[in-house]
Amino acid sequence: MALAARHGIRFVALGEDDYPGRLRRTASAPPLIAARGNTGCFVRPMIGLVGSRNASVAGLKMAAILARGLGEAGFTTVSGLARGIDAAAHRASLGTGTVAVLAGGQDCIYPAENAPLVADLIGAGCAISEMPMGHEPRAHDFPRRNRLIAGLSLGVIVVEAADRSGSLITARMALEENREVFAVPGSPLDPRAAGTNRLIKQGATLVTEVEDILAVVGPIIDRGISEPPGEDPAPLAAGDPGEGARDSLSSLLGPVPATVDDLVRASGLPAATVRVVLLEMELAGRLHRDSGGRVSLA
Amino acid sequence: MALAARHGIRFVALGEDDYPGRLRRTASAPPLIAARGNTGCFVRPMIGLVGSRNASVAGLKMAAILARGLGEAGFTTVSGLARGIDAAAHRASLGTGTVAVLAGGQDCIYPAENAPLVADLIGAGCAISEMPMGHEPRAHDFPRRNRLIAGLSLGVIVVEAADRSGSLITARMALEENREVFAVPGSPLDPRAAGTNRLIKQGATLVTEVEDILAVVGPIIDRGISEPPGEDPAPLAAGDPGEGARDSLSSLLGPVPATVDDLVRASGLPAATVRVVLLEMELAGRLHRDSGGRVSLA
Repeated sequence: MALAARHGIRFVALGEDDYPGRLRRTASAPPLIAARGNTGCFVRPMIGLVGSRNASVAGLKMAAILARGLGEAGFTTVSGLARGIDAAAHRASLGTGTVAVLAGGQDCIYPAENAPLVADLIGAGCAISEMPMGHEPRAHDFPRRNRLIAGLSLGVIVVEAADRSGSLITARMALEENREVFAVPGSPLDPRAAGTNRLIKQGATLVTEVEDILAVVGPIIDRGISEPPGEDPAPLAAGDPGEGARDSLSSLLGPVPATVDDLVRASGLPAATVRVVLLEMELAGRLHRDSGGRVSLA
Repeated sequence: MALAARHGIRFVALGEDDYPGRLRRTASAPPLIAARGNTGCFVRPMIGLVGSRNASVAGLKMAAILARGLGEAGFTTVSGLARGIDAAAHRASLGTGTVAVLAGGQDCIYPAENAPLVADLIGAGCAISEMPMGHEPRAHDFPRRNRLIAGLSLGVIVVEAADRSGSLITARMALEENREVFAVPGSPLDPRAAGTNRLIKQGATLVTEVEDILAVVGPIIDRGISEPPGEDPAPLAAGDPGEGARDSLSSLLGPVPATVDDLVRASGLPAATVRVVLLEMELAGRLHRDSGGRVSLA
């Protein structure tokens, strides 16, 4: 917690008011997000922009044009802080607000070359992570990061992507969450357009200018993000767990791994509250979770 | 007629067996086509390929890839003999058969630089015109030529086209004739892709490889080109009009303009026969048609 505070990080729990609204409705909504910067940017509707790391000049330019236009139209952009398209999208919306979703912990910025970009974007925007401090991102953390990008966003724009690119995974996750998918076309002779052209063939909206995006998402914003009554796919935690719960669980935990169910039973706390406290501790680097999901003090 | 024969031209009338099948079903089917080359290529299903005159290297390459692939898949390609995409499409299907639709008469090849291409393509393919010998193409003849390209074809592929390009007129005409429209995408930053990207937004099939075309037109070919019984939008002429009809109309015509209705009444011949004979004479340069549609000997 002290480490997190030194990094200017605050935690936003699933049940809190400033937890991003659309992410809350997803099945995989993290119970707790570590956020650095201005969480006020969560209030504006969000659009993801993703694409190739080794982007072309035209691709980088399109990413910047779209991100700038979306910012001016009142959107917060979301991306994954990768080289290429991601970085170009963040950079073009520094003034209007952009969310960088990190694959690792807040103190493990990847790639390191984009640490200055994080420093710039936390003015109007925010860097977020569901991972604990000290967590170096591994290969399987990137699809997980992509799921957050899709979950936060009304829709995801793929600017440039080769076949079998990670950006296509983000697009698939967006579809799974019933979000819109947009793609920027390119010449069939340019391998970096193979993925985006394929998405368009599969039904993604072809984007050549920001108006193409606004035409699709405008009506969705007008509808709001309320779900039909009776549907509530993601259980909501009960806001701040409170110091009593934190103390109780701290004393129950020790060096011997315990299951979450054990802790729920032993503490008498609601399961959601236990999960939030454990995640706070995990994000603060105080908790170790083993491969079987059992937890112990770190 | 003698002039036409010297150019190796034969006339194909609307009612004849080797008149192109799909063109026959269009409202604007020319009663008579002047054809130079191998009219046997009309028998294979046809696909139009059109695009920018000032095409990019990538555009020319795509036109060639698609034309070659269509030829190998059993199609005759159709285009307008223009510089750029048109010429590239003709050239890539010289071996399998391509139809060049001329905007002017058979002896007025435009642009002149493509006269050698016509000489090459009439081996397996054919150059066709609905215009009389000696007719130099004027601006309004090009949309008319485009209508023929659309009418001959199962579908039209636009390879590269700026906004407000003539190729988009061909695409619109294809839609009007219920033909398929295909477009090759490109970067939104390339003005030569503005027209094709717009077509895709409007519902054209995005094409990156020849299989994209085959997937759409395959089922149409399987259905054949027969119309539902009772529907026959274009009146069919009664095959060769015969020498008697030609002699009768020649003697009725003179230097004073007459309406076609007058000639039908005076000759006692079927209207379709009169129209075919008049067009034969017009194509041979023997007939003058004034702006009101009245005809006189040239």
